[in-house]
Amino acid sequence: MAERGSAEDRLIARYFKPLATAPGALGLTDDAAVLTPPSGCDLVLTTDGVIAGVHFMPNDPPGLIARKVLRMNLSDLAAKGAKPLGFLLTVALPESIEETWIAAFAKGLGEDAEAYGCPLLGGDTDHTPGPLSATVAAFGTVPQGKMVRRSTAKPGDVVVVTGMIGDAALGLLKQKDNILQKRWQLSVEQSDHLKVRYLLPEPRTALAEAVLQHAAAAMDVSDGLVGDLAKLCHASGVAAEVDVSRVPLSDAAQAALAADPTLIETILTGGDDYEIVLTLAPQRFDAFRAAAQKADVEITDIGRVVAGEGAQFLRNGNALAFAHRSYSHF
Amino acid sequence: MAERGSAEDRLIARYFKPLATAPGALGLTDDAAVLTPPSGCDLVLTTDGVIAGVHFMPNDPPGLIARKVLRMNLSDLAAKGAKPLGFLLTVALPESIEETWIAAFAKGLGEDAEAYGCPLLGGDTDHTPGPLSATVAAFGTVPQGKMVRRSTAKPGDVVVVTGMIGDAALGLLKQKDNILQKRWQLSVEQSDHLKVRYLLPEPRTALAEAVLQHAAAAMDVSDGLVGDLAKLCHASGVAAEVDVSRVPLSDAAQAALAADPTLIETILTGGDDYEIVLTLAPQRFDAFRAAAQKADVEITDIGRVVAGEGAQFLRNGNALAFAHRSYSHF
Repeated sequence: MAERGSAEDRLIARYFKPLATAPGALGLTDDAAVLTPPSGCDLVLTTDGVIAGVHFMPNDPPGLIARKVLRMNLSDLAAKGAKPLGFLLTVALPESIEETWIAAFAKGLGEDAEAYGCPLLGGDTDHTPGPLSATVAAFGTVPQGKMVRRSTAKPGDVVVVTGMIGDAALGLLKQKDNILQKRWQLSVEQSDHLKVRYLLPEPRTALAEAVLQHAAAAMDVSDGLVGDLAKLCHASGVAAEVDVSRVPLSDAAQAALAADPTLIETILTGGDDYEIVLTLAPQRFDAFRAAAQKADVEITDIGRVVAGEGAQFLRNGNALAFAHRSYSHF
Repeated sequence: MAERGSAEDRLIARYFKPLATAPGALGLTDDAAVLTPPSGCDLVLTTDGVIAGVHFMPNDPPGLIARKVLRMNLSDLAAKGAKPLGFLLTVALPESIEETWIAAFAKGLGEDAEAYGCPLLGGDTDHTPGPLSATVAAFGTVPQGKMVRRSTAKPGDVVVVTGMIGDAALGLLKQKDNILQKRWQLSVEQSDHLKVRYLLPEPRTALAEAVLQHAAAAMDVSDGLVGDLAKLCHASGVAAEVDVSRVPLSDAAQAALAADPTLIETILTGGDDYEIVLTLAPQRFDAFRAAAQKADVEITDIGRVVAGEGAQFLRNGNALAFAHRSYSHF
């Protein structure tokens, strides 16, 4: 970390240095970190951040905010088939921030850094007159030339998604309007499920190796399945046909959808899923499913890649139309 | 760049994609960038950012803000002896931002990315309810095991700084209080010099190879020479004695100091120099000076590393005492 004055030095030494477990982090006491890249590997680099009031509520638990911003980046790495190597962190803290907040943030961050094998390498802390923000730049490795791209889907490929779609977007809606839990007739467990899925995505790091082995093209679903699959199709110069009835929904999402059928748009175009959408040759599907079972990640065949343009979401043979294809914080 | 919705897509495609000249940036159309690290090299990673109202004035020229944040990171790489490889950019934009601002920001960024051989690899843009901020994570390479550290200075080493010290801190003071140009009896040229040195640091990228070859220890001077040299000494378990009369000052800084001798504290402890302070064995000094001349970078022998603790700044044999050793935005 760039050490700026004693207040920052003290915070870094106390809360972030214990997370800098990689030798190349140099205990956060130098201008930069150093990494020897594994030989025969490419580096995969991504960055994503969160801002209070935009991507999270200022009173969300700090440990969860930290884990979410790291996981957003881990999700990108997993979708590219990359194994995590480490990350840089930038935090901008309002003057009013309590040290207990920083302690809880660092604790959550450290837990996930360890759980996902992605140590803190360095970073930068500053005070800001604005809202709190946290940005991660994360690095992973793939065998040379093997990063899984968006642009390599082929007609005939199966379209697959991991996990469940729509929970996080429903969780955000519900968090903004408490009446919805009742209107959607959710059990306490269902309501909690949606909330957790919004606050704490599950990056599919365990599936990265299988994505690398089998996927023709892949990306992470962070801005809604409809818009993200459309981007993948655009990059690949292909189209996709998705059977909406096969899009995997949790019990909670199914309950909400039964109570309010218009929620299908929120489910399919809302953000923050942090699942992977990928395409693969049909003959690879069984091997991929076996690898996914081993990694304890659910996967679902939701459609096919075809020649043409655009991603169509079909219900009873009719393409759904959406007011907004992607969730945008922008 | 993580593309979030059409407004961001359009901005990225129009203004940032032309900067993504490295093949591994994939035209900013994927979740991540990919790099094949040069064989036999370590990667050097650093991150530093700026926030409006903290590190720059909201009405500073956007092209200069962009160049400064990239240069701050290039300065860290140069101090480590690293050759630039590329960078990730995160920008948080207020809703009120004009597209012309973004165009000018991207133009300045692109000019420096090209000039320093450090292409844009990817990034993230978001809107923020707070002040504008920009964060760069930059990557460089050094031969394996050769990154120049802070912790390897030895008693007997010569202490060297590049360029001139204190200009940027004086430039900031002057920018905050227009009366100072008159009080310091600066010519227009001198006044402009201080302003430019504050707005646009000169990373010593051209000297990185010589630092790598000759330095025992090095760091960039970004938070004031006094505090930064103290950090280097602390990391190395040594002390340093600096002759204040040998610290290199520009004409402008000399004029200001003549008008107000108390400015020595601003000069020595102010931030934003973005020079390099390094130590080297005396027998290496001539070769280093020759390399610096070839790179067209001024260097000055300002003192010696000795056994002990702390960095002393001596004037007529007496150690100066400072109210604040480092400039801190924190």
